[in-house]
Amino acid sequence: MEKVYDVILARNPPRGRAFINRIAGALPLFLLALGTTDTAKIPSISAAGATPEITDFTPPADAELLYYGRCRCISGVPITPEGIPTPALITRSALRLAGMPSIVAVGGLRVAPSIPFINLGGLPGMDIKTGCAVKDAAEVLEKATIAGDHLTRNSDYVVVGESAPGGTTTALGVLVSMGYDAWGKVSSSMPRNPHKLKRSVVETALTSACLREGSLRNDPLKAISCVGDSMMPAAAGLILGAARNVPVIMAGGTQMAALLAIVNSLNPALAGNLAIGTTRWLIEDGTSDLIGLVSQIADIPVLAADMNFSKSRFAGLQAYERGVVKEGAGAGGSAIAAMAWSHGRITGDALLHEMEAGYESLVDLGKQGER
Amino acid sequence: MEKVYDVILARNPPRGRAFINRIAGALPLFLLALGTTDTAKIPSISAAGATPEITDFTPPADAELLYYGRCRCISGVPITPEGIPTPALITRSALRLAGMPSIVAVGGLRVAPSIPFINLGGLPGMDIKTGCAVKDAAEVLEKATIAGDHLTRNSDYVVVGESAPGGTTTALGVLVSMGYDAWGKVSSSMPRNPHKLKRSVVETALTSACLREGSLRNDPLKAISCVGDSMMPAAAGLILGAARNVPVIMAGGTQMAALLAIVNSLNPALAGNLAIGTTRWLIEDGTSDLIGLVSQIADIPVLAADMNFSKSRFAGLQAYERGVVKEGAGAGGSAIAAMAWSHGRITGDALLHEMEAGYESLVDLGKQGER
Repeated sequence: MEKVYDVILARNPPRGRAFINRIAGALPLFLLALGTTDTAKIPSISAAGATPEITDFTPPADAELLYYGRCRCISGVPITPEGIPTPALITRSALRLAGMPSIVAVGGLRVAPSIPFINLGGLPGMDIKTGCAVKDAAEVLEKATIAGDHLTRNSDYVVVGESAPGGTTTALGVLVSMGYDAWGKVSSSMPRNPHKLKRSVVETALTSACLREGSLRNDPLKAISCVGDSMMPAAAGLILGAARNVPVIMAGGTQMAALLAIVNSLNPALAGNLAIGTTRWLIEDGTSDLIGLVSQIADIPVLAADMNFSKSRFAGLQAYERGVVKEGAGAGGSAIAAMAWSHGRITGDALLHEMEAGYESLVDLGKQGER
Repeated sequence: MEKVYDVILARNPPRGRAFINRIAGALPLFLLALGTTDTAKIPSISAAGATPEITDFTPPADAELLYYGRCRCISGVPITPEGIPTPALITRSALRLAGMPSIVAVGGLRVAPSIPFINLGGLPGMDIKTGCAVKDAAEVLEKATIAGDHLTRNSDYVVVGESAPGGTTTALGVLVSMGYDAWGKVSSSMPRNPHKLKRSVVETALTSACLREGSLRNDPLKAISCVGDSMMPAAAGLILGAARNVPVIMAGGTQMAALLAIVNSLNPALAGNLAIGTTRWLIEDGTSDLIGLVSQIADIPVLAADMNFSKSRFAGLQAYERGVVKEGAGAGGSAIAAMAWSHGRITGDALLHEMEAGYESLVDLGKQGER
């Protein structure tokens, strides 16, 4: 596929190239929206934590890692059940190499991060099987829109990422309830994507909420409220507020398809300022279809950071090449931003080297802790 | 006194002029630090609320007014016991006329504002007579410093204001404990400045904390912890983080002298990026001495917005000319920023007109509410 720097033009290459040209050389503000859903605690549904219960700590731990290079609310860093580390390590490396400023916005969490963060007054997300997932979607979306506007009046552009374990299942819920053909198309942090389980959870959720596929075609706020997660109103508001002023890289995998459906339904005029930024692992994933989802929603470019961890010194990072993790915490979008800011001087390999240095010091720290 | 636009060069005119030249034409980010102190509930000490108890609502109400043009946590707007309205009306007008973005940071409050705000994890401030005013000053200062750094990497400069009822008494506590000659020099929102009462409160506070005048000359964090308020670590951190990157207008009256003492003690190298921005009413006030305080601490310019409300249609605004309120919520500094951004096109009179329009709609709203 065509590339500019180490950025793959994965969908609509002419618009993707034009988008990169608009942002090249500019330093964006990186915004990370955090949220939880108790859906992540359904066994085998998410690998964004060593155990289902600990997924509550993954978003705040990711955010702490960005600011301090280590976590505070947990020891070590968030890992999958197999011990593969969080993609926030990639984000941290991209932010450091480019000197990119970052602000974290909380849509609703059970554990607050030990950093300065934007409080949007939201509650943690409930299990979507209840059909009542997010109680305060409208208020959080309103506040996040204000924040997105104010934070970007002085910026060249922004990158909006997410950390929300279980978020591909809630993305499936929102997409299906809004009428998109999304069955079997959302991604997973696991190499074996549990599509059957996700479908069964979403079908139960729709029934609980008295919904059918497509019944919320024009009501994205109700889709979040019934079958979404607490990250969604935060990220959607930030994107809606920011895209009035500046270009926005929506940084993530198939969760960004759900956010695109929400944002595009609330304000279709913003599409010209949007691109999705993700990773090569995500677009090469045979078990999901980000491009197919985006194409149903809006004709925006999809960009993918070309990183290859197969030669990493660390087995935990090599595992990314086997389709574990793939994306999260705005990893792909922040990597693309660092590449574009540096006119390609920051490569996928440079990000890996920076990441290995950071990871090494964390592993050393862990060993000291064990003594 | 010398003026540039409608900005009075109230201290060190050459440096003041140079500072204005640096920022002219640029659009800053306005940051508002909120905090409370139970010291404000001592009868007759503060007029930043109709009654002592209601001062808990003044900072969140000021912040809501900036974002929405009306308050949410109270009906009407914060007023003095005589009904004179909050200076946040001036700030709101300056932000609107210049299209200036704003972000609110909470150091510690009893009532959360209904806006997106930066949570710094702090608790409300206790009465300084206990000698244990702020429990978490170091953590809040650290987080605010991070936020101040990240928020300003993409900005030309920032304005940092405060809303903290009772804050001149805590300012007196911090200044005296750090060894400055501040007795009888801090300002008041009342025309009759209760210096005797403030002195008695601060003397009790110092005794409770086992301190004497000057014993915390080199320990500003302990000064905040013992005799300060919860706004201080938030505002000080924002200034410390921001002034590394960009010029900072410290927007306020004598509370900014205490913040200057704190900031200058923690990082004296930043002074070249600092100016205090206040109002004409404050520097013409015969019952306080901002210039005298600043001159003891650091040789930075003091700027004052020249506004005159004597011809206002509203008695509540005319009262500002009698020395009521004088300053607060970053009124003077945001007015200066609007004047400098517009190269003087936004005048003191233009701010009054904008303010009267906003105030009129609020008064109408109040009448509707009474029906």
